[in-house]
Amino acid sequence: MYEGVVQDLIDELGRLPGVGPKSAQRIAFHLLQADPADVQRLAHVLTEVKTRVRFCEVCGNVAEEARCRVCRDPRRDVSVICVVEESKDVVAIERTREFRGRYHVLGGAISPMEGVGPDDLRMRELLSRLSDGEVQEVILATDPNLEGEATATYLARLLRPMGLRVTRLASGLPVGGDLEYADEVTLGRAFAGRRSLDA
Amino acid sequence: MYEGVVQDLIDELGRLPGVGPKSAQRIAFHLLQADPADVQRLAHVLTEVKTRVRFCEVCGNVAEEARCRVCRDPRRDVSVICVVEESKDVVAIERTREFRGRYHVLGGAISPMEGVGPDDLRMRELLSRLSDGEVQEVILATDPNLEGEATATYLARLLRPMGLRVTRLASGLPVGGDLEYADEVTLGRAFAGRRSLDA
Repeated sequence: MYEGVVQDLIDELGRLPGVGPKSAQRIAFHLLQADPADVQRLAHVLTEVKTRVRFCEVCGNVAEEARCRVCRDPRRDVSVICVVEESKDVVAIERTREFRGRYHVLGGAISPMEGVGPDDLRMRELLSRLSDGEVQEVILATDPNLEGEATATYLARLLRPMGLRVTRLASGLPVGGDLEYADEVTLGRAFAGRRSLDA
Repeated sequence: MYEGVVQDLIDELGRLPGVGPKSAQRIAFHLLQADPADVQRLAHVLTEVKTRVRFCEVCGNVAEEARCRVCRDPRRDVSVICVVEESKDVVAIERTREFRGRYHVLGGAISPMEGVGPDDLRMRELLSRLSDGEVQEVILATDPNLEGEATATYLARLLRPMGLRVTRLASGLPVGGDLEYADEVTLGRAFAGRRSLDA
């Protein structure tokens, strides 16, 4: 409907996840009226990101060198690996400052609905990292949903014969939440995982 | 939180209208995993749009030449001008194929709340287009909301002494809608503007 390149821009923006035709149009008009330097910076960083960013050869996290920031850091505890679905999860966990080990990014979760099986995830790479006996514990930090639970169960079974400690993040009530608004599965898990206060 | 250029990309995307931090992260990871050619195409069109797109010297619509597609078209009726707020409105009206005149894009609407007054809109340009006596009718097609109505009222008062026909788009029930769901203002307008069926 628009002249040449304006329509091209709307089409390209509309291909991004979560950007519908109306938002694409809104963003395009914003860019048309924006400072050329701002738009140039966005165009530049798009090119940069594809040339400079790769995936860490050890853990699969996003990285600008052969190894990611965590894997390059000599102060990290090499005896613990935290297994997550995506690089976003690494960022979420780093924000807590609770974990000082390293990560392994699977690149998703087992999902028969979406045709994702164990072979589509970086499981073989995880097993080869465990082969030298340096790792003592594997924390399964996949999402607490159907796919994440299935992936954790699958991995737990795979890792059991290796004589490692295999753990899963605790399920329970979110801190700051209201008990009455918790769904029954979460509340059930909170009961099952209750802790003794005199400990 | 991310390494260098990934965080830069998330920051730049987060500056776009309607893109929050979570969507920016989601789009960034989509782009990281996307085909480099697709990302390159988006980067290219961003650069292109800023170098090639300008605003029509006659009507203010987006254009790739000095004049927009409508103003260049010799088959358009030069005796009618339809005044709209934005280029998006031109596209919406063109889609109806009901209007064969030309447009005038104001670049917004009068809004004391947002500090937009008549001088911030392309009103002087409209008056100078009307000075040669070629235009017989001005259709005020600003949005049917508070700002759009105020702008239409202001323009109607400005144009009245010029002896032109000044019209406003009809308000009423949207076609395909349910009468019971119409708000009272719209329903009231639909009554006030009722037409005789034997006409």
